[in-house]
Amino acid sequence: MIKAYAALEPKGKLTEFEYDPGELGPQEVEIDVDYCGICHSDLSMINNEWGLSEYPLVAGHEVVGRVAQVGEHVTHLQAGRLVGLGWHADYCQACSHCNAGDHNLCLTAQGTIVGHHGGFADKVRANAKCVVSLPEGIDVKSAGPLFCGGITVFNPLVQFDIKPTDKVAVIGIGGLGHLALQFLNAWGCEVTAFTSSESKSEEAKSLGAHHTLNSRDSEAIAAAAGRFDFMLSTVNVKLDWNLYLSTLKPKGRLHFVGATLEPLDINVFGLIMQQRSISGSPVGSPGNIAKMLEFAAQHNIKPMVEMFKFSQVNEALAHLESGKARYRIVLEK
Amino acid sequence: MIKAYAALEPKGKLTEFEYDPGELGPQEVEIDVDYCGICHSDLSMINNEWGLSEYPLVAGHEVVGRVAQVGEHVTHLQAGRLVGLGWHADYCQACSHCNAGDHNLCLTAQGTIVGHHGGFADKVRANAKCVVSLPEGIDVKSAGPLFCGGITVFNPLVQFDIKPTDKVAVIGIGGLGHLALQFLNAWGCEVTAFTSSESKSEEAKSLGAHHTLNSRDSEAIAAAAGRFDFMLSTVNVKLDWNLYLSTLKPKGRLHFVGATLEPLDINVFGLIMQQRSISGSPVGSPGNIAKMLEFAAQHNIKPMVEMFKFSQVNEALAHLESGKARYRIVLEK
Repeated sequence: MIKAYAALEPKGKLTEFEYDPGELGPQEVEIDVDYCGICHSDLSMINNEWGLSEYPLVAGHEVVGRVAQVGEHVTHLQAGRLVGLGWHADYCQACSHCNAGDHNLCLTAQGTIVGHHGGFADKVRANAKCVVSLPEGIDVKSAGPLFCGGITVFNPLVQFDIKPTDKVAVIGIGGLGHLALQFLNAWGCEVTAFTSSESKSEEAKSLGAHHTLNSRDSEAIAAAAGRFDFMLSTVNVKLDWNLYLSTLKPKGRLHFVGATLEPLDINVFGLIMQQRSISGSPVGSPGNIAKMLEFAAQHNIKPMVEMFKFSQVNEALAHLESGKARYRIVLEK
Repeated sequence: MIKAYAALEPKGKLTEFEYDPGELGPQEVEIDVDYCGICHSDLSMINNEWGLSEYPLVAGHEVVGRVAQVGEHVTHLQAGRLVGLGWHADYCQACSHCNAGDHNLCLTAQGTIVGHHGGFADKVRANAKCVVSLPEGIDVKSAGPLFCGGITVFNPLVQFDIKPTDKVAVIGIGGLGHLALQFLNAWGCEVTAFTSSESKSEEAKSLGAHHTLNSRDSEAIAAAAGRFDFMLSTVNVKLDWNLYLSTLKPKGRLHFVGATLEPLDINVFGLIMQQRSISGSPVGSPGNIAKMLEFAAQHNIKPMVEMFKFSQVNEALAHLESGKARYRIVLEK
């Protein structure tokens, strides 16, 4: 039996919950969970904001732990190996996207917490393809959030071939943004942080920003016209996107990893005249998760985390919901 | 003296107009104009729709002719050479974009008909860098529209590395779209034409479309979900862009070369979940114009044109404005 914390209904408090995972599949890995990050999408799933939730629902998709057992066809992982598991728990491994190494774009990929029980538990299972080894030298305690928040902001740098010579900006310094600043600084870029919070401005610099701009100061933003090759938006609020687009150089890209609910209202002329792009992306493939972890270990990139015990999961969720987490929360035994 | 046809005021009829171009600059080329295409942006400039027009205004930026004389520093073009001239008549040749071969994105590039007299004339001048030789085998009479309309739809294929294995679509079959179909077919792609006109559907197939879809049939479009790698929009009307985006595969791109005046209202979630991009681009660099001309000559790609005499320029403009041109208009002596 696996001992977990589950929501029994939308917006319900998590309660202790045991389930029998059945026989281990030939391609599956079972992980003894040591740590599990809490991501905002755990809250969205617990609250059934996307209409995808099935109850009892065991959230948690930023898992770090050790391999407990492997299925008979799994050859690249052995019991005892230190590993992590992120948003996806299974890929089809047969479609054109999986074949191209873009498993995270597989249209039939399974979520770790969508129709499957996640990492707020003593054990979790997933297809071996989704389980990634931790490299030497990584900080194990804070590594969980790299498996969702970290890969979400790292993956665009690989996908869009961001260059160390690029001038880049991060909009919003929170759970995603504070990781983006660290990755982009280590990538060699000149990094600007857009934040509306004076208190975060200094912290943004300590995380790797060379400059900061007040995201609510339209004049300051207008004065940055034509400055950036790449902007990463991590916010979920509506901003004056055409103003932000004007800060891009020709060929520049405004990329979204934060899902603003209000539609973007984009002036086409501004895209055409300077060949600008707008785009978005979700998490990353196992190959890019492994690359991201090695890069984080090499450059000592670490999520800033607040630790809670698994038994305090409801307090931890309330803290996240309050917006006061600085910047990610990790559950530990 | 150069003999031209000029608008003397916004929306004015063109009248005969002579001007003295002065001494030829050391970097300039003077072209004896044989043919000049008419582009919708000539009409926009004559009507001062963009607030950029200076009168008398000599429009015309799809020029084909022979070099009449070259400035003392021009070494790569000689008198008698068959050449063309498009939207740009000068580039700074010093900025990062010019240095990178992206002259069309030079922020101080000069337009052939913006503060400069264009090709509705017996002669026109431009910086030698903007004047591109016609390759062997090209159809001279219909080549003018390649210098603006042609490069506008060809350039994105180069910029975004479109592959012959890509499934592509063209939205709107008119002056731009009928060229895009030909280029994309020759590029090796599977090509779908979106058109609202039944009569254009058959013609789209003769121009290279393998499939057609009615751009006003929401059900048919919804049924094409996840089908295209690349869509090129040439229209200037508002469509249901989120519906069109849904027809893109993961990593797909919706690219605008037609300037719709109404803002795009884009659902960010659709961009994020499947890593889709939206973008735009203007004309192309001299290097890509030369590449496009060679490709057109090799594959016998030709604008479908209606010919008018230069002396009929007002009738030609009225025909363009009526929306009945099939598909580009070229003035000849």
